[in-house]
Amino acid sequence: MSLKPISEIGEFGLIEKISSLCKKTIPEKSSIVEGIGDDCAVVELDTSRLQVSTTDLLVEGVHFDLLTTPLHHLGSKSLSVNVSDICAMNAKPSYALVSIALPPSASVDMVEQLYQGMTHAAGLYGTALVGGDTSASSTGLVISVTVVGETSKERITMRSGAKPGDMICVTGALGGAAAGLNVLMREKQIMMEHLQSGEEYDRNMMNDLKEYSGAIQNQLLPSARTDIIDYFERNSIVPGAMIDLSDGLASDLHHLCRRSQAGARIEEGRIPVLSEARHIADEFQQDALDYAISGGEDYQLLFTISGEQFSAIAEHPDISVIGSITPEEDGIVLSDIYGMNITLKEPGGFDHFRK
Amino acid sequence: MSLKPISEIGEFGLIEKISSLCKKTIPEKSSIVEGIGDDCAVVELDTSRLQVSTTDLLVEGVHFDLLTTPLHHLGSKSLSVNVSDICAMNAKPSYALVSIALPPSASVDMVEQLYQGMTHAAGLYGTALVGGDTSASSTGLVISVTVVGETSKERITMRSGAKPGDMICVTGALGGAAAGLNVLMREKQIMMEHLQSGEEYDRNMMNDLKEYSGAIQNQLLPSARTDIIDYFERNSIVPGAMIDLSDGLASDLHHLCRRSQAGARIEEGRIPVLSEARHIADEFQQDALDYAISGGEDYQLLFTISGEQFSAIAEHPDISVIGSITPEEDGIVLSDIYGMNITLKEPGGFDHFRK
Repeated sequence: MSLKPISEIGEFGLIEKISSLCKKTIPEKSSIVEGIGDDCAVVELDTSRLQVSTTDLLVEGVHFDLLTTPLHHLGSKSLSVNVSDICAMNAKPSYALVSIALPPSASVDMVEQLYQGMTHAAGLYGTALVGGDTSASSTGLVISVTVVGETSKERITMRSGAKPGDMICVTGALGGAAAGLNVLMREKQIMMEHLQSGEEYDRNMMNDLKEYSGAIQNQLLPSARTDIIDYFERNSIVPGAMIDLSDGLASDLHHLCRRSQAGARIEEGRIPVLSEARHIADEFQQDALDYAISGGEDYQLLFTISGEQFSAIAEHPDISVIGSITPEEDGIVLSDIYGMNITLKEPGGFDHFRK
Repeated sequence: MSLKPISEIGEFGLIEKISSLCKKTIPEKSSIVEGIGDDCAVVELDTSRLQVSTTDLLVEGVHFDLLTTPLHHLGSKSLSVNVSDICAMNAKPSYALVSIALPPSASVDMVEQLYQGMTHAAGLYGTALVGGDTSASSTGLVISVTVVGETSKERITMRSGAKPGDMICVTGALGGAAAGLNVLMREKQIMMEHLQSGEEYDRNMMNDLKEYSGAIQNQLLPSARTDIIDYFERNSIVPGAMIDLSDGLASDLHHLCRRSQAGARIEEGRIPVLSEARHIADEFQQDALDYAISGGEDYQLLFTISGEQFSAIAEHPDISVIGSITPEEDGIVLSDIYGMNITLKEPGGFDHFRK
């Protein structure tokens, strides 16, 4: 067996390879509308209904750190990140399957806290937890969540539907999750130093972090924007294209444009940055705009709509128009506050950021 | 946080606890027909169609050993064990989502071999691989597979439908997977001794194991019995209750009887034991009947049918009647070849066996 390391083809090369192998299992005329390539797979249920489904695998030491992540929050987040993918298809979650592999050190109370977080989130989103699998893990905690949702052929929104002239919108304020992660990493560093020097450390540290609580909550306890999907439905809005902000605005805008074969121009001054993220960025002598553009894990929705639909979203207090879709050859550019156009490069996204 | 170890409540206690937490997320009047407790979760799609779904998490060092498991086989098996759960509901698989977490040592070729095994199995079962997730693992390989299938309200078969008087049937021959595992474990032992003493070992060991190939194949490359589900459909057979043999005949019969509130009496002389398993048991000075009853992982189907339906299965060369369902108070008994009734205890199943 030759040993070409995965780093040689990168994560996208790997997904490309897996995707081309899996494509062969989808017959020409089948009920499968979309396989690998969007936020969810899409399957026809009948002449009008579509089922969407997504799955995420969370591995201790890669996706989360139990030193800085309470188990309630982890349980809730592991469901929310999947529901966020369902939202990105303009769909609503129906049910979820959850598997966990537990390290030898796991206690009954740990499992209870994890599931309490999950059932809390399930209640918020109206998602039933219907099954799963439990097993031992030879090392850390592993959580696998699959969420199945539903939408209609009229309402389904893919990454690929953006057209030049469409407005680019984003929900909420960005940068909070990245700012919160910075604070948590600093806190962990302090904790480790205390442990190494044998000093006491107050594990109930959250009390000291109150001024950062909004950003920390964005990182540990993000919410999927099912409220926006409900708003779209009530107001008969169907976005042209949509994706959820998991990798970061720059990466996710690139994903959306690539699938839509389009370009984009966004304006720095219009990007909604969480004010607490600005405050934290100042403290770390970093740029809050970097958190918002490259940070990832905000789990807000990035979508496009046509000019005719603008009036229907203009009233919403939590939706910002940040730019517009352009022809593919114009590339993806950020227009800074002085009107200078800068090519918006595709960063490595979330994983890269954590390095 | 108190630290009650999971061993104190056991795996079933843990599932009980998780199940009671998850139940709260299922509203009274919803489309969820069955949550945790059967081979699959069951959700109503419309007035006649039911969707069934199942998920399994496979962890290196717990569920498989890459020293004795070719990646092609692992890929195929990880899909087959889930499709087997779909079959156990008298349903057919529609699509699958696959997530993998890769250790730092993983190569592109390893991933290709794994997915080649999966797509091969997907082709056999007519299941489309439509999505998933790839990530890094801080330690070993982790595979999570979710399979979604479909059946009708008329054909759905739960664990709970067995009635006293029903005949108990099993497909195929049992004990092969356990016998194969024994051979592979012995081979691994020899391999480890060679490695420790610095001697050469021919990694292409399968050539030397030809006489055991049937049993090894049962262990490494089990097939889900979609052919039996097709046969049931063609012949209008609907079993009373059904379960797939993953934990072993004794454990799985207990699961089925517990959910059906019934007892069972099976006859030792009627249990179909794979002839190669007998040969291997002789060599290991063990009892092939133990492999068949407690071994697990044969992924055959155990089901009950009423006397009226017997003629429809009597002709099938690969279905054996091994006993009958009795009232709950009669317990679960094995009648040995001399006619002696022995209480069939519930062993720890598959995990226990591997200790």
